Amino acid sequence: MALSVLNENETISPVELLEKLNWRYATKKFDPTKKIPSDIWKTLEKALILSPSSFGLQPWKFFVVSDTALRKKLQAASWNQPQIVDASHLVVFAHKKGLNASDVDHFVQSLSDVRKVPLASLDGYKQMMVGFVNKAGSGFDINAWAARQVYIALGTFLTSAALLGIDACPMEGLDPDQYDQILGMTKQGYHTLCVATVGYRAADDQAASLTKVRFDQNDVVVHI
Amino acid sequence: MALSVLNENETISPVELLEKLNWRYATKKFDPTKKIPSDIWKTLEKALILSPSSFGLQPWKFFVVSDTALRKKLQAASWNQPQIVDASHLVVFAHKKGLNASDVDHFVQSLSDVRKVPLASLDGYKQMMVGFVNKAGSGFDINAWAARQVYIALGTFLTSAALLGIDACPMEGLDPDQYDQILGMTKQGYHTLCVATVGYRAADDQAASLTKVRFDQNDVVVHI
Repeated sequence: MALSVLNENETISPVELLEKLNWRYATKKFDPTKKIPSDIWKTLEKALILSPSSFGLQPWKFFVVSDTALRKKLQAASWNQPQIVDASHLVVFAHKKGLNASDVDHFVQSLSDVRKVPLASLDGYKQMMVGFVNKAGSGFDINAWAARQVYIALGTFLTSAALLGIDACPMEGLDPDQYDQILGMTKQGYHTLCVATVGYRAADDQAASLTKVRFDQNDVVVHI
Repeated sequence: MALSVLNENETISPVELLEKLNWRYATKKFDPTKKIPSDIWKTLEKALILSPSSFGLQPWKFFVVSDTALRKKLQAASWNQPQIVDASHLVVFAHKKGLNASDVDHFVQSLSDVRKVPLASLDGYKQMMVGFVNKAGSGFDINAWAARQVYIALGTFLTSAALLGIDACPMEGLDPDQYDQILGMTKQGYHTLCVATVGYRAADDQAASLTKVRFDQNDVVVHI
């Protein structure tokens, strides 16, 4: 795909957005010889970083696995799906386990540093977030909440990739515990949720030409 | 913002994508006089429809609430946050509760219809998915899984809005049970997760000029 040059304050057109969202699909077969150029990959990593999360708490980590031996091990923990080794890039999406008050402290410190505001002025906001993460135990599952935030990042990432003309396949068909172990994630306090394999579709990937299957818009979008 | 015209097979540039992702922020104050044009809104609804989900099962519904009285009720169930009534559009994101074999049937029928393949040929795929949704009870929480899928759609939606120059504020600060009741969602088998308020930032929204707070990229993206 060619690159366009948009001027600042221009947006893409609705037609163009839909063209890109229709272009994307869950790539079943990647061309293993094609690698994503460094500037494009760095942009996709930045898209992950820029993803929104509730309160801005970013309860996530993204593992970009290049090591061939590790990717083979991960493939064995993913029903041997070929995308794990054939795609140009592999990102493992993980959530922070048991998010707690010290994570809130860390975030509030970051807020104070970046925005150059005194920590004390953020105390009300901090206490509100501490109250939120401490809801755990009263039927509120902080890990399920953190996992949902990670999926916002997944949506941001997949949409960003499509806009840049990069193919991807999000995958949940894997053993999260094995992933945690292979990537040494447990001791860091994170847990695997899913992966995105990213690169370029093989010329003969039959999945590329399949019609997208979506429920009728009138059944999915309700106007009240 | 002006519209650009991209030719087919062009993508946006990495710089442009990041410019848009940096431009977006959680809008605290919308201009209540500015409404999203119909063609742009229809595009955002289509972005929701086109969002990926695991297996393509789309365990979601999106409630677009225009009714003023309903929006006031929802505001009362959302800590009285003004965006609920001031934004041009309000979307409530909900997941299907207790997804089961009949939902899989519905999806497989849709797959058969759209791709014009015999139902019988999809039986292996269907049984695999039925096995997946029936994992519930063995420590697997199908509702938590469905909720995560909805957050992919949230990420897709927020990124799409930013690309189109539309402001948004995703919000979890609401009472999901009250939302379910106000919108008559329970009897339809859905449960509220979060909302996105969408429209145009007020000229004096101070949140627009705040520096984005993100953890250091080296702490969030791990290269292995």
